[in-house]
Amino acid sequence: MLPKPIQNLIDQFTKLPSVGPRQAARFAFYLIKQSKLNLDDFAKAIIDASKNLNQCSLCFRIIECQNDKKNKYLCSICKNPQRDKSIICIVEKDTDVEAVENTGRYNGLYHVLGESGLKEFSKPNIENLHLKDLIKRIKNSHEIKEIIIATSATTEGDTLALYIAQLLKKNLPANKQITRLGRGLSTGSELEYMDEETLSQALLGRK
Amino acid sequence: MLPKPIQNLIDQFTKLPSVGPRQAARFAFYLIKQSKLNLDDFAKAIIDASKNLNQCSLCFRIIECQNDKKNKYLCSICKNPQRDKSIICIVEKDTDVEAVENTGRYNGLYHVLGESGLKEFSKPNIENLHLKDLIKRIKNSHEIKEIIIATSATTEGDTLALYIAQLLKKNLPANKQITRLGRGLSTGSELEYMDEETLSQALLGRK
Amino acid sequence: MLPKPIQNLIDQFTKLPSVGPRQAARFAFYLIKQSKLNLDDFAKAIIDASKNLNQCSLCFRIIECQNDKKNKYLCSICKNPQRDKSIICIVEKDTDVEAVENTGRYNGLYHVLGESGLKEFSKPNIENLHLKDLIKRIKNSHEIKEIIIATSATTEGDTLALYIAQLLKKNLPANKQITRLGRGLSTGSELEYMDEETLSQALLGRK
Amino acid sequence: MLPKPIQNLIDQFTKLPSVGPRQAARFAFYLIKQSKLNLDDFAKAIIDASKNLNQCSLCFRIIECQNDKKNKYLCSICKNPQRDKSIICIVEKDTDVEAVENTGRYNGLYHVLGESGLKEFSKPNIENLHLKDLIKRIKNSHEIKEIIIATSATTEGDTLALYIAQLLKKNLPANKQITRLGRGLSTGSELEYMDEETLSQALLGRK
Repeated sequence: MLPKPIQNLIDQFTKLPSVGPRQAARFAFYLIKQSKLNLDDFAKAIIDASKNLNQCSLCFRIIECQNDKKNKYLCSICKNPQRDKSIICIVEKDTDVEAVENTGRYNGLYHVLGESGLKEFSKPNIENLHLKDLIKRIKNSHEIKEIIIATSATTEGDTLALYIAQLLKKNLPANKQITRLGRGLSTGSELEYMDEETLSQALLGRK
Repeated sequence: MLPKPIQNLIDQFTKLPSVGPRQAARFAFYLIKQSKLNLDDFAKAIIDASKNLNQCSLCFRIIECQNDKKNKYLCSICKNPQRDKSIICIVEKDTDVEAVENTGRYNGLYHVLGESGLKEFSKPNIENLHLKDLIKRIKNSHEIKEIIIATSATTEGDTLALYIAQLLKKNLPANKQITRLGRGLSTGSELEYMDEETLSQALLGRK
Repeated sequence: MLPKPIQNLIDQFTKLPSVGPRQAARFAFYLIKQSKLNLDDFAKAIIDASKNLNQCSLCFRIIECQNDKKNKYLCSICKNPQRDKSIICIVEKDTDVEAVENTGRYNGLYHVLGESGLKEFSKPNIENLHLKDLIKRIKNSHEIKEIIIATSATTEGDTLALYIAQLLKKNLPANKQITRLGRGLSTGSELEYMDEETLSQALLGRK
Repeated sequence: MLPKPIQNLIDQFTKLPSVGPRQAARFAFYLIKQSKLNLDDFAKAIIDASKNLNQCSLCFRIIECQNDKKNKYLCSICKNPQRDKSIICIVEKDTDVEAVENTGRYNGLYHVLGESGLKEFSKPNIENLHLKDLIKRIKNSHEIKEIIIATSATTEGDTLALYIAQLLKKNLPANKQITRLGRGLSTGSELEYMDEETLSQALLGRK
């Protein structure tokens, strides 16, 4: 019974992850009370995102690109001569790159797997990840000495890390070092609420 | 450090009510993985909403209108000859009209106050509500016999209802009946968790 | 591996409704750090409760009784000559009596059904409620004119209320009035979040 | 208005950590519906805990002791000849000992600081912790080679760990090694939600 333009807007918002019809309606009614200018800005932001983004042809990070789509693009990190090219950090998604960059403790390269294959560990899903590209990339580079598998410490992340580690060992010369992020107490962890595995790792990794 | 088109999109989503930067980023990364077609649909839904919506000139419900904006528009309820024109239900916002319509128990008219004045009960806020229009509307109609003040049962809703009731009594002939929604147990209420006021009303309104 | 007296204490706390092992441990470790005096007070409170409580033989409220358990006891409300003996309010449990008393709007009598039968609506459960006593009590009293069925507005409460209403109609003279608590907006209800049934009742019960 | 024995019981439960009056009432009404036998068991568990618990005179763990309170008691870990006496793990409370024991990866000794001083880092609070006993204990033992400060990874835990580390360095010979639990990804951590400090530690501690 709502006017069609509102219902359409609600339907669009409902497609966003973890947005229910109630929240979508709140978003839609909020928007239609904004000025035409604000709404046009919002629409433009969406259209720009659909037009002006591409992936780095080396590490698969999402990058801005305003021109011809047929060229090969490199992201600011892959292009940067100051970055340490002997080490490459494999992450699941772009926001993970942000997280590692924000630590200020890492100056190497990245390789973004892409999220599509991560929810369920099935063969077709795995094949959507940029793993073949990763192996080719490492084989082509004499500089890379260490590969950090920086997946999350979840069941899915651990399964994926194991799979990647085996794949790399099978396909790469033995002198490439394969590492994983250290386990232990995260900020805020209290001993009595920690799982045994993490506490074990924290004990072994004491220093 | 994120590409500008993504950051812009995140910024737009952050403006939506109760969306933080983390959720906005999730929305933005979800969107940029959709097809260009889907993104264009989203943008179009926003632009349509900015162009093709107007308010009913009588009850201030939001309605679709594709044409000349200078005309006076009437919504489907105000235009409907089957609706009972002797009774008018004052609500805070369009979604409240939806809620009352969904009961299937009301066949009268509505008057939407608009939300802008409701959060803080100050004089300028109150003047943004469509209250003068309401009084004029009722004065102009010989048919209206009952006015239901259907504000929420919150402190703000009660304060507003009191204010409106006094305003109507001062400005309208005494033969117009002014009513409020009944108070009592809502579905799911348990006696031991109810506030005293509601339980008092439930006792007085027993039947 | 915990010392047995602590483990015993944890086990006891785990029996309390919605207390998990973690919270039970917190309770136990909190307690053992208290003075011996405080712990003795706690133990005494439990023993007193097991010894000095009984039920009102008329309305089944829980009452204090220090003496001979063979006597028939009456609670302060049943004994009070100021209470209105023409009206009786049927509630599920003692805390519901508290809730109704706290409104200050009810001066009649009560009848506590007991909770044991309420979770699942099965025949043996229903027979644990003080319903036969209720019918006998009303039949024996010429004074009672109205019976308020004050169950909660939950599915269980509504089912039980229906069952009781039918039982009373079958067993009592037609001149006894049977009522239920009024339905409508509870304090804090917002129109757009209300279920249709409650909003319907609020519309019908407007005043 | 509730009978005094119930009110007393509610008051006792309200003293437990994070139990409000509503939950306390639920506990009390649950209890009074139990058999006299069950209630006596509960009371006995409390009294036993007040009588039959003591602290290990070496590590301050809580232990069971049924006899003469003037003797010095040793807990099962301190007495166990199989435990590695070259390493001592400093924890805040008894449940932390449980947590470390449950990993099955630690065979050394413990020292329980006691919780009283941990909430606020003030001088009198710190003096309630068993720190002087700790220094004396380490000084008296030629066997101890490593001291693990296993406080939680919270602000309070970190502050306390720093304080203890300085205290130990000032008071102990330099050949005693002082370590802390390793930091990094806890089970369940996702990269994009991790704080920078933890992710930094996880990068540095990769292996």
